[in-house]
Amino acid sequence: MTQINHNFLELQGSYLFSEIAKRRTKFVQDNPQAEIISLGIGDVTRGLPEAVIKAMHAAVDEMAVPGTFRGYGPEQGYDFLVQAIIENDYKARGIDIQANEVFVSDGSKCDVGNIQEIFSNDATVAVQDPVYPVYVDTNVMAGRSGKFNKETNRYDNIVYLECTAGNNFTPSLPDRKVDLIYLCYPNNPTGMTLSKEELKKWVDYAKANNAIILYDSAYEAFIQEKDVPHSIYEIEGAKEVAIEFRSFSKTAGFTGIRCAYTVVPRELKGYDPEGNTILVNDLWNRRHTTKFNGVSYVTQRGAAAIYSPEGKEQIKALVDYYMTNAKIIREGLASIGLEVYGGVNAPYIWLKTPNNMDSWTFFDKLLSEANIVGTPGVGFGQSGQGYFRLTAFGSRENTEKAVERIRNLSL
Amino acid sequence: MTQINHNFLELQGSYLFSEIAKRRTKFVQDNPQAEIISLGIGDVTRGLPEAVIKAMHAAVDEMAVPGTFRGYGPEQGYDFLVQAIIENDYKARGIDIQANEVFVSDGSKCDVGNIQEIFSNDATVAVQDPVYPVYVDTNVMAGRSGKFNKETNRYDNIVYLECTAGNNFTPSLPDRKVDLIYLCYPNNPTGMTLSKEELKKWVDYAKANNAIILYDSAYEAFIQEKDVPHSIYEIEGAKEVAIEFRSFSKTAGFTGIRCAYTVVPRELKGYDPEGNTILVNDLWNRRHTTKFNGVSYVTQRGAAAIYSPEGKEQIKALVDYYMTNAKIIREGLASIGLEVYGGVNAPYIWLKTPNNMDSWTFFDKLLSEANIVGTPGVGFGQSGQGYFRLTAFGSRENTEKAVERIRNLSL
Repeated sequence: MTQINHNFLELQGSYLFSEIAKRRTKFVQDNPQAEIISLGIGDVTRGLPEAVIKAMHAAVDEMAVPGTFRGYGPEQGYDFLVQAIIENDYKARGIDIQANEVFVSDGSKCDVGNIQEIFSNDATVAVQDPVYPVYVDTNVMAGRSGKFNKETNRYDNIVYLECTAGNNFTPSLPDRKVDLIYLCYPNNPTGMTLSKEELKKWVDYAKANNAIILYDSAYEAFIQEKDVPHSIYEIEGAKEVAIEFRSFSKTAGFTGIRCAYTVVPRELKGYDPEGNTILVNDLWNRRHTTKFNGVSYVTQRGAAAIYSPEGKEQIKALVDYYMTNAKIIREGLASIGLEVYGGVNAPYIWLKTPNNMDSWTFFDKLLSEANIVGTPGVGFGQSGQGYFRLTAFGSRENTEKAVERIRNLSL
Repeated sequence: MTQINHNFLELQGSYLFSEIAKRRTKFVQDNPQAEIISLGIGDVTRGLPEAVIKAMHAAVDEMAVPGTFRGYGPEQGYDFLVQAIIENDYKARGIDIQANEVFVSDGSKCDVGNIQEIFSNDATVAVQDPVYPVYVDTNVMAGRSGKFNKETNRYDNIVYLECTAGNNFTPSLPDRKVDLIYLCYPNNPTGMTLSKEELKKWVDYAKANNAIILYDSAYEAFIQEKDVPHSIYEIEGAKEVAIEFRSFSKTAGFTGIRCAYTVVPRELKGYDPEGNTILVNDLWNRRHTTKFNGVSYVTQRGAAAIYSPEGKEQIKALVDYYMTNAKIIREGLASIGLEVYGGVNAPYIWLKTPNNMDSWTFFDKLLSEANIVGTPGVGFGQSGQGYFRLTAFGSRENTEKAVERIRNLSL
């Protein structure tokens, strides 16, 4: 008999977005005249920047004829893109990253999902709570989670780092030894950030405990405030303990085009069962070249175009557009006395539900009374109970309309 | 200490293509005037079909403006592509496949590499020898291979199915119980095929032994002869025992664009440790939606265009071009008394080295005396020793020149 990977059986239903869709569908059936506004899923809505469109057209034309046609490219990404990343995202901030430390991929979801493969199945995993579900689910599939406890809404062997208003969404260091720490900043779903000082505590912890930080900074482009670190490598010594994930998805509207990259420094070491040192970069390179075949040439040309002078201006305009939406939501909700977080350096607004309503009750209220779809905080973990996520990725018109409707609610 | 996945340490150096590159580079340094022709790596060289180029341009334009912009798409692929696949690749051959059985991806390498994740780490794996290295390496990473034995050039726990001229490259059924069987037809590297009758034996074996066949038919489009099965689902009952992998890479020149798909029938079942039946389709769907975020919309539009009337004509012309190359190589080599296989239903020619030369000796001879780069058969496994792979993916001019050079060799 071909046995399955039984760890999959420990996965909890990916109920969040399907439950949202179900409730939305039912509401629309019962209220066909309702004009629903979705500030739920974290997907962009504006067109791709002109520079990207132009570069992609040019690349498509190159693919039409033998002389300029490109077949298999380097699995780690074309040099033109890797160099642009190094120059603009790192060197410009005083960070020295080498070409063999950058791995271009088709998405941060894939990279943060796949990275755990190169570590031991016995590794102890710490995640923030609330959390992007992929960090947890991929470790469940690998057998690192232990059993799911329905009472606590948590897995037995995963260490949860609580992020609530009570600690200003700044997690405490783990109270027991952990090996892999997923940190996401600017944070999805809370929209909050860490100061350099706070981030340094994590780097120091990882050094002292031989842990590795998996630093997801997919929302880096949305940082507006001066003191917020854009890269974990701004912290001294972080290259010895951290892998960084970046994405073009939200930065440049690439959710439907698929491009991201991961930085695995040559300084980063793991250990084999005999205690010998192994370069994590070598492992990831082997994984990446064995199970992945590179990103579309057309896509990579599009991604490289965002680093051109026009491209930079255009993605700044894109980010400004969404961050203005974030400001409208944040200020609009605060003005009626709601407790709001995030939305300053991230496209997510995390709000405390009024009157300690639970997340799903607030979801139903917002849907039925304001015809707005958002995301219940508890869907991201137990510490998200009583919170709610709205995103800034809608159109200006819909965002303004949504805020107006919420302001008119009786809360 | 963060321990690594120590299974990675069992991987053998991916020496094949790097060793080829090393020897080629050295030869070019020593002989800068030499005009090298590469018939080595299995990559295409012609431009993309016009219908694909047109569809991709149109899709890029759609991505430029909010009204037609597409963000996250369905992880399993857009319906327009899934329906075109079902209609043209299956229904047209009398095979009934449902939309929820098709999973569009960014490459067969990824799919055949990732599929093993959903099965138990204790599963016994059988591969053909010679073999596409990804099947083996990804199982090594998962810990299914056991130790590598330098004397046999094989892993202890993998079952190798020998394919040599001695059995007309038709493997015998395994002599012990196996759970997962990788079959590749038309075969890479040998270029050989299985008849329906032979393929039926494997389906029957899998049924009788509760095994699962992982059927890689990336080269299906190159089949010219009538009786060769295009899909394993042409065999009755195969949906209960087989997963099929297909790719646009070679069919339509997508190696640099990245698109493929995998069919996981709803009839296919695995077992949990208690012996309960689990739908493999559900597991793969969960894996695919958790660790993958869909293929670029632009790419999917390009892929769908190959199913249009113009697209079909254009990819037929593309396949004909390469298969004419194959014929030129096959007949040219046979005419000087070389034993050649494949090249009839596949773009690969597998030749027996003259005078029982070992694969690498023949590589060096071909490089130094004819300035041609090919692939030593032993690089694909021990049963490839004494064989050599040439590909039909070059230009017509280079292919003809290469054959002429080989004809003039003293062998």
